Amino acid sequence: MASTSKIRPLGDRVLVEPKEEKEEVRGGIIIPDTAKEKPMEGKVIAIGKKYDKDHKSVDFDVKPGDRVLLPKYGGTEVKIDGKKYQLVREEDLLGVIE
Amino acid sequence: MASTSKIRPLGDRVLVEPKEEKEEVRGGIIIPDTAKEKPMEGKVIAIGKKYDKDHKSVDFDVKPGDRVLLPKYGGTEVKIDGKKYQLVREEDLLGVIE
Amino acid sequence: MASTSKIRPLGDRVLVEPKEEKEEVRGGIIIPDTAKEKPMEGKVIAIGKKYDKDHKSVDFDVKPGDRVLLPKYGGTEVKIDGKKYQLVREEDLLGVIE
Amino acid sequence: MASTSKIRPLGDRVLVEPKEEKEEVRGGIIIPDTAKEKPMEGKVIAIGKKYDKDHKSVDFDVKPGDRVLLPKYGGTEVKIDGKKYQLVREEDLLGVIE
Amino acid sequence: MASTSKIRPLGDRVLVEPKEEKEEVRGGIIIPDTAKEKPMEGKVIAIGKKYDKDHKSVDFDVKPGDRVLLPKYGGTEVKIDGKKYQLVREEDLLGVIE
Amino acid sequence: MASTSKIRPLGDRVLVEPKEEKEEVRGGIIIPDTAKEKPMEGKVIAIGKKYDKDHKSVDFDVKPGDRVLLPKYGGTEVKIDGKKYQLVREEDLLGVIE
Amino acid sequence: MASTSKIRPLGDRVLVEPKEEKEEVRGGIIIPDTAKEKPMEGKVIAIGKKYDKDHKSVDFDVKPGDRVLLPKYGGTEVKIDGKKYQLVREEDLLGVIE
Repeated sequence: MASTSKIRPLGDRVLVEPKEEKEEVRGGIIIPDTAKEKPMEGKVIAIGKKYDKDHKSVDFDVKPGDRVLLPKYGGTEVKIDGKKYQLVREEDLLGVIE
Repeated sequence: MASTSKIRPLGDRVLVEPKEEKEEVRGGIIIPDTAKEKPMEGKVIAIGKKYDKDHKSVDFDVKPGDRVLLPKYGGTEVKIDGKKYQLVREEDLLGVIE
Repeated sequence: MASTSKIRPLGDRVLVEPKEEKEEVRGGIIIPDTAKEKPMEGKVIAIGKKYDKDHKSVDFDVKPGDRVLLPKYGGTEVKIDGKKYQLVREEDLLGVIE
Repeated sequence: MASTSKIRPLGDRVLVEPKEEKEEVRGGIIIPDTAKEKPMEGKVIAIGKKYDKDHKSVDFDVKPGDRVLLPKYGGTEVKIDGKKYQLVREEDLLGVIE
Repeated sequence: MASTSKIRPLGDRVLVEPKEEKEEVRGGIIIPDTAKEKPMEGKVIAIGKKYDKDHKSVDFDVKPGDRVLLPKYGGTEVKIDGKKYQLVREEDLLGVIE
Repeated sequence: MASTSKIRPLGDRVLVEPKEEKEEVRGGIIIPDTAKEKPMEGKVIAIGKKYDKDHKSVDFDVKPGDRVLLPKYGGTEVKIDGKKYQLVREEDLLGVIE
Repeated sequence: MASTSKIRPLGDRVLVEPKEEKEEVRGGIIIPDTAKEKPMEGKVIAIGKKYDKDHKSVDFDVKPGDRVLLPKYGGTEVKIDGKKYQLVREEDLLGVIE
């Protein structure tokens, strides 16, 4: 996991490793293939650093290791060691899968 | 209900299980089929966590179990165990059916 | 009035029962039929719950029973027991007819 | 004046009775007919109720009886006893004619 | 000057008497005729009344008599005694000519 | 320099004397001619007066005499004694050349 | 490094020396060539000066020497001694490569 620890997201961004998309697996969280704005599942690898209005650091509501639903379009894709990751603002994350 | 408890909405989002649409049932809440932006009825399954300007947690005005009116378009659809749900921002919910 | 009490508006929304439109009745409040954005008359049935910047509850400037002028387009229509109502944000209400 | 007192504007709105438009009267305030966004003259009939950021009531800078310049487009027209009035936000009023 | 004193600008607006446009006068402030958004020179006749976030009155940075540069488009033209004036928001004024 | 001292910028504006554009001079700051939004070099002649949220005056980060990079489009051009200047908002200035 | 120290970024801007783009180098951070909005790698050369809501100076989350991911489009290109640099707002920087 040395390579993924290479990126520290800036601001309210979260580094997410997207799960490969599969269709219609019962018993798990499945993203519909007909929805216009399809969310994806992914795993949080690293979080940034965000501030309140007085520029004091505040906590994120996700942490590394969380499985999250993220909008399919909206983040920025980066490649680390040939593998794709997403840098997404935390407020764009939809939910945590528990 | 194990499966629906799998998603914890992030931010001011609410997880809603939409009611199947029916037309013109007297004695209940019916959504008109001619309105341009038709609201739907649904049940709140889970709520997120939201903050005031000082980043202190504040209460939602809906709670799990509430029957709510939600805009037909505006949320994000997710599938859990083959069933469709909506992740909607609380401020987009129109009302609670009591 | 059991049925209309079924909806509790959320946020700064107001549930309004629109008056059927009539044209040019002298001695009352009449909405012109040539204006591009025609307001309607209605009666406030229920109000939501709104907050100031510190998330403290603040009063509405309308109350149930008030006759109000509302923009014709802008709210969301719902049907209760086959009758049409509007869910409108309070700041979109134009005035109270006294 | 019983009829005009029937409307209490909501929020930062002002009820204005527009003056009939005339062209080029010297010695008075005349609105040019070539300007793209022509202001109109009118008389303030009633004012709403507005709040500062702490939801405390603050004064309007116009009062009933003031002659004001208002943008020709921007308010909402209502008819009271067959006569046209405008509901305009105070910040859209251009000036007071003294 | 009786007539120009007739208008009290509202809000952060300033009443400006525009100087007739001339082209290329050396030794003075000249507005280029090729610039897309040409500023004009004018004289401040009257100022409005503006407030800080606590609704306390704050000073303008221009005063009656100041010669100002104003954007050619952006204000609202009014006629007083057959002469054209501009009602312009103070933040749209570009500079004071001293 | 009598003439340039004639303009006092208003608000957060800065009066800048643009340097004539040259192409590809090594050893100096050169603006590329292929960039879509080309910055220009200029000299600060005068600064305005800006305020924080409590309407207290705050310092500019540039001062008269500073050589600055400014966006080619975005300011307003004025002519003083037949010479072109720019009135630019301070937040649009890109950097200071030291 | 005399030449790059010539530019002091203004506001929340950061001066970045972009790394020449290479395709698919394993073991390093690689930007995909198919992504619509491709980020680039670069090195922070200088940072500006930014303020909180009370106009007190606050720290940047990057410092000179940091290797950063920056959006390909969004900054402003400048040339120093014939070499291209980017002036980018800090909030547009995506992450730091560690």
